[in-house]
Amino acid sequence: MRAWILDDPEQLRLTEKPVPQPGPAEVLVRIDAIAFCDGDIRIITRGPPALIEGGLPFNKNFTPGHEYMGTVVRLGLGVDEYAIGDRVAVEVHFGCGRCERCRAGMYTSCLNYGMNYGTHNKGHRANGFTTDGGFAEYAVNNVNTLVHVPDGIGDEEATLIVTAGTAMYAIDTLGGLIAGQSLVVTGPGAIGLLSVAVGKALGARPVILTGTRDSRLELGKKLGADHLVNIKTENPVEAVKRITRDKGVHYVIECSGNPNGLSDGMDMVMRGGRICLVGFANEPVSVDVAKLVRNHISVFGIRGEGRSATHRAAALVAQRRFDAKLIHTHTFKMEDVPMAFKYSRERIDGAIKVVVKIRET
Amino acid sequence: MRAWILDDPEQLRLTEKPVPQPGPAEVLVRIDAIAFCDGDIRIITRGPPALIEGGLPFNKNFTPGHEYMGTVVRLGLGVDEYAIGDRVAVEVHFGCGRCERCRAGMYTSCLNYGMNYGTHNKGHRANGFTTDGGFAEYAVNNVNTLVHVPDGIGDEEATLIVTAGTAMYAIDTLGGLIAGQSLVVTGPGAIGLLSVAVGKALGARPVILTGTRDSRLELGKKLGADHLVNIKTENPVEAVKRITRDKGVHYVIECSGNPNGLSDGMDMVMRGGRICLVGFANEPVSVDVAKLVRNHISVFGIRGEGRSATHRAAALVAQRRFDAKLIHTHTFKMEDVPMAFKYSRERIDGAIKVVVKIRET
Amino acid sequence: MRAWILDDPEQLRLTEKPVPQPGPAEVLVRIDAIAFCDGDIRIITRGPPALIEGGLPFNKNFTPGHEYMGTVVRLGLGVDEYAIGDRVAVEVHFGCGRCERCRAGMYTSCLNYGMNYGTHNKGHRANGFTTDGGFAEYAVNNVNTLVHVPDGIGDEEATLIVTAGTAMYAIDTLGGLIAGQSLVVTGPGAIGLLSVAVGKALGARPVILTGTRDSRLELGKKLGADHLVNIKTENPVEAVKRITRDKGVHYVIECSGNPNGLSDGMDMVMRGGRICLVGFANEPVSVDVAKLVRNHISVFGIRGEGRSATHRAAALVAQRRFDAKLIHTHTFKMEDVPMAFKYSRERIDGAIKVVVKIRET
Amino acid sequence: MRAWILDDPEQLRLTEKPVPQPGPAEVLVRIDAIAFCDGDIRIITRGPPALIEGGLPFNKNFTPGHEYMGTVVRLGLGVDEYAIGDRVAVEVHFGCGRCERCRAGMYTSCLNYGMNYGTHNKGHRANGFTTDGGFAEYAVNNVNTLVHVPDGIGDEEATLIVTAGTAMYAIDTLGGLIAGQSLVVTGPGAIGLLSVAVGKALGARPVILTGTRDSRLELGKKLGADHLVNIKTENPVEAVKRITRDKGVHYVIECSGNPNGLSDGMDMVMRGGRICLVGFANEPVSVDVAKLVRNHISVFGIRGEGRSATHRAAALVAQRRFDAKLIHTHTFKMEDVPMAFKYSRERIDGAIKVVVKIRET
Repeated sequence: MRAWILDDPEQLRLTEKPVPQPGPAEVLVRIDAIAFCDGDIRIITRGPPALIEGGLPFNKNFTPGHEYMGTVVRLGLGVDEYAIGDRVAVEVHFGCGRCERCRAGMYTSCLNYGMNYGTHNKGHRANGFTTDGGFAEYAVNNVNTLVHVPDGIGDEEATLIVTAGTAMYAIDTLGGLIAGQSLVVTGPGAIGLLSVAVGKALGARPVILTGTRDSRLELGKKLGADHLVNIKTENPVEAVKRITRDKGVHYVIECSGNPNGLSDGMDMVMRGGRICLVGFANEPVSVDVAKLVRNHISVFGIRGEGRSATHRAAALVAQRRFDAKLIHTHTFKMEDVPMAFKYSRERIDGAIKVVVKIRET
Repeated sequence: MRAWILDDPEQLRLTEKPVPQPGPAEVLVRIDAIAFCDGDIRIITRGPPALIEGGLPFNKNFTPGHEYMGTVVRLGLGVDEYAIGDRVAVEVHFGCGRCERCRAGMYTSCLNYGMNYGTHNKGHRANGFTTDGGFAEYAVNNVNTLVHVPDGIGDEEATLIVTAGTAMYAIDTLGGLIAGQSLVVTGPGAIGLLSVAVGKALGARPVILTGTRDSRLELGKKLGADHLVNIKTENPVEAVKRITRDKGVHYVIECSGNPNGLSDGMDMVMRGGRICLVGFANEPVSVDVAKLVRNHISVFGIRGEGRSATHRAAALVAQRRFDAKLIHTHTFKMEDVPMAFKYSRERIDGAIKVVVKIRET
Repeated sequence: MRAWILDDPEQLRLTEKPVPQPGPAEVLVRIDAIAFCDGDIRIITRGPPALIEGGLPFNKNFTPGHEYMGTVVRLGLGVDEYAIGDRVAVEVHFGCGRCERCRAGMYTSCLNYGMNYGTHNKGHRANGFTTDGGFAEYAVNNVNTLVHVPDGIGDEEATLIVTAGTAMYAIDTLGGLIAGQSLVVTGPGAIGLLSVAVGKALGARPVILTGTRDSRLELGKKLGADHLVNIKTENPVEAVKRITRDKGVHYVIECSGNPNGLSDGMDMVMRGGRICLVGFANEPVSVDVAKLVRNHISVFGIRGEGRSATHRAAALVAQRRFDAKLIHTHTFKMEDVPMAFKYSRERIDGAIKVVVKIRET
Repeated sequence: MRAWILDDPEQLRLTEKPVPQPGPAEVLVRIDAIAFCDGDIRIITRGPPALIEGGLPFNKNFTPGHEYMGTVVRLGLGVDEYAIGDRVAVEVHFGCGRCERCRAGMYTSCLNYGMNYGTHNKGHRANGFTTDGGFAEYAVNNVNTLVHVPDGIGDEEATLIVTAGTAMYAIDTLGGLIAGQSLVVTGPGAIGLLSVAVGKALGARPVILTGTRDSRLELGKKLGADHLVNIKTENPVEAVKRITRDKGVHYVIECSGNPNGLSDGMDMVMRGGRICLVGFANEPVSVDVAKLVRNHISVFGIRGEGRSATHRAAALVAQRRFDAKLIHTHTFKMEDVPMAFKYSRERIDGAIKVVVKIRET
């Protein structure tokens, strides 16, 4: 099969690889479409996290890409949850199933993250992070990492289900019951915009979106934001105070990765408030820890889309509770992955979600 | 009655005040003993928080002190939960009962904190913080802020029940079920030492205590610590890695207020770990927020002793699960509050808990 | 003011009473409209629960009715949460604020339920159950029992907010995160129908409604049910198995009060399923308890609309997530309360929610 | 190897079987000791549950027994959690890891329970229930079903760790934080007695044990019960009211399987109380469901020892928080399994836990 591999940071190369074979509880997915995520940009720029963090040599044969969807074409032993021909979207994390976290259902916090090779093989997989991903014609997925694409949802939109799953998991982590509760989402990237959408679908009110680009903020409005704050023209903390009449909000989902993100969030929430951190800040930030204590604030870092949130997100997509397609801006062919990468990284032409159609339709 | 009041920061003065009268759901407590807490030191040094934070003029008639115990001597209307003659210890926070947080049982996060006067009166009380405290012969307490002193527990030890309540609340916030789970407590102050004790009583293992003074660390051992780390001689993160064979711990209770407390905690916990912040850091600290995301770490700032934790702590004291008396180091008379304050602030003669006996026995 | 009182079971009499005065944290509500609930029928037929359960003599001056809405006309001391002229709906339970349950936020399980008189006065109120209710021109409500009526919602619809609050609380109790989860609601009464509506609004799928009357089941469809089961023509357990392809459902909300309700629910849920009991069965039922154990089933009895669910329900109503008006079938004048009672009890003319307009508009 | 098999109900036969081989994530355990549990008695009397429930033909080669401990003698691929020579106790349930429940950490509610054969093989195992158990010289266990035997704990006592795990899971299910909370345990069988022990170790107070045999009740006292109620001489509901001064208790763990168990529990708990069902009642029982609603009672059926409770229980055993050995009454040799079964079933000579030493020491 044809597959893109990452030779060295920023060195993507299209090559041939054998089609992988599904084992027990796995299926072979023919990939139809895949979207770029900020995580992909980090990986293509700097290398896969397990290698970098673990100090291992760079795997020259690694295929990145994790926001994909496709069609089931082969079933591993014992699989009856999916049938050949099923259209599926994916989630990333397949936990080892045997560490404490996995046993408690926290498979995105698997203690054996990256342990999928050699004598250390605990079976963990994170396609596109530690195992081969979706910039290829085929990939193997454990049934735990699949979700049915709802009828009537196109390939491009289906690649966004996992993104909506992360947004859902953020809301889950914040407590879940947010009807009538106030929510700030910082950063109108893909996850931020879908956090607005999922939050609104579940009844949050008001939903306040902060960012720097009016065009993206306007998209947020279409997805359900009640208030937009352009932080280039208004201090976001003051804006939140103004909108909430000095009460502050119940919840903040920090998606900007901005160095001020956490500190600002701490000033936005009311006493007893909760902050979910989704964005990656690139540098250490200064935080007034005593304020967390004084105001009884909880901060939750999350990674990925745990607790089957992708399934719940797919249910909202199936019920057309929001139009995820709005954040899909560009489409490229399989051959043009480097160009797609460039558009995604540099946000050329207002790019938000850049999709690569692996299979032409 | 005789009462100490705080005229200006650091200006304590013994004076006469009328004995307060209990209203409905309140009792009058004759104060028998009271301990100094770091919170008292902050207040006596800088003024009560509500005033300082709210920019209000300094209340020249304010009596500080919140870790007290005594005897019920008068009942307000409708009180049958306590009887005259009952020995009681206290918790601090009486929530307004009408804000969202109080309605959800989070009375230590009351949104009307400090709103106990004039047209803004929502009924909130935090004796020793926003309403008159215990460096006096009598105080009024809502029944919600009382707990029976178990039989056989002396006055001095009883003042520590509220401290144990904060430790219990920290463990509660971390999930509560800690039998066989690993716990780091940073900072062998009173709350830290009792966090070790409560954690051990509930089965945590191993319990690791970090600090700078060997004498206090040794006390921690007597209260249940399995490992002691003097951070002047060993890097605490490396020590935790050594003790846990690189696994890290499940939980950290940060009681040191050390600027590195949060960051170190983030390096001590395993993926999916939880950190409870109890200590007040005096300055903003640098935090690698991306690590919270990458390692799926939760951070909980808490204030006080919520969720009736003081009652659960009192139950452990009643069952002699640990010997809280170990942290009581000094006793003074009511006349000597300034000296007791000095001992407590400057940790003279190894002072940990300095108790003032209001009533001589 | 004019007020209906219950002299003896079934003996409603319109009389004059003094207008009650709001105390601290209370407001006086001019009642504009009130709906009949099954609970009212029980009370009018058999007497208020606290009296019956407690064996106390019948209070000849008691005004029933708890599903009301109106306009704030006077403010008690310290109230700034509501202003004169605000349109408000109500929830029933005002907890004592001092028992263990209230302290934990479980005010609908107040241990001092009914303790609102004489030396036993703990301040508990449940208007229409233990304190005077809404079949009168005015009532006093604690601010905790009020919620703003959203703009554009008529008086009749506003009386249903508390009903939707009970439905919301049922879903909350079941775990809250029900997007994409399967839900059976048994019994298409007012709470059942709004459970369908709230469940659907939060993304449950499929939502299955069972009942005996096709006309009500059809209403359920309009409110969001994906499948209707008329239990007179199909066994409900078999129907659920058919619809879910033998998997069973995640959740059951039992609103029918049918003697088979719990047992059927136990056969409908999958292993690990949860059942919320809302309906009152009039007689003891036979239950195969071992099945609860074998299939790891949880059963939650709930009373009222706890955890501020009414506020979250009002937020969904404000956002027009469903049309609660659909279940409002009849309207009467204040003078015609006995006729409204008859319509409600006997379900004359397909009556579901029978509303009495206290104030003609 | 030698192994007991169940030919037909009540027909135990000692035979030879090949030693099973551990697959990936599995180990081979040389069984040293095994205890009889009521579940074994049901199985030996009536057949394995999956067969009976599923209507499948009786597996003539099945080895029962699930409360065993032993020594690791071979490691499957990728196992480094345990080493050869480690002494291990077991828990029963190994979930499929791929159904919704397993993904959420609820592996004792696995939706693929019993699916461990043929084309339906989802990998679920419950040794002694659906896969071969421990009345044999060797068994294969997934690493998820093992726990290290603490130093200094003998073989016989180690067989009780899984029983204590069930008790721990019951307390976990009830909320976990039970210091100072009141607890009734009904039925002084092995699980009931260890529920007393674990509850007391975690600080419950008072702990009330009900039963019919004074000798067992006395054992309960040694394990931590504060009050004993012989239901042959006193009505248990009245006794609980007497002991709690009419308040009722917070929690009930129903271990008796008595037909009145649930109903009595409902009358024992205070409003908002919780009941955990552990015992299997043999017949349907009559329940006043309306009382669950009126008193806001939650009922939790549990099966097995979920949420890694066995690990937490082992931690308490390691710390000698209670003496599980007290409930071990009889020991037999491997050859004498039928006699051990008879003692256990008929409670001959006051038998509680009857242990078979598979390996003579």
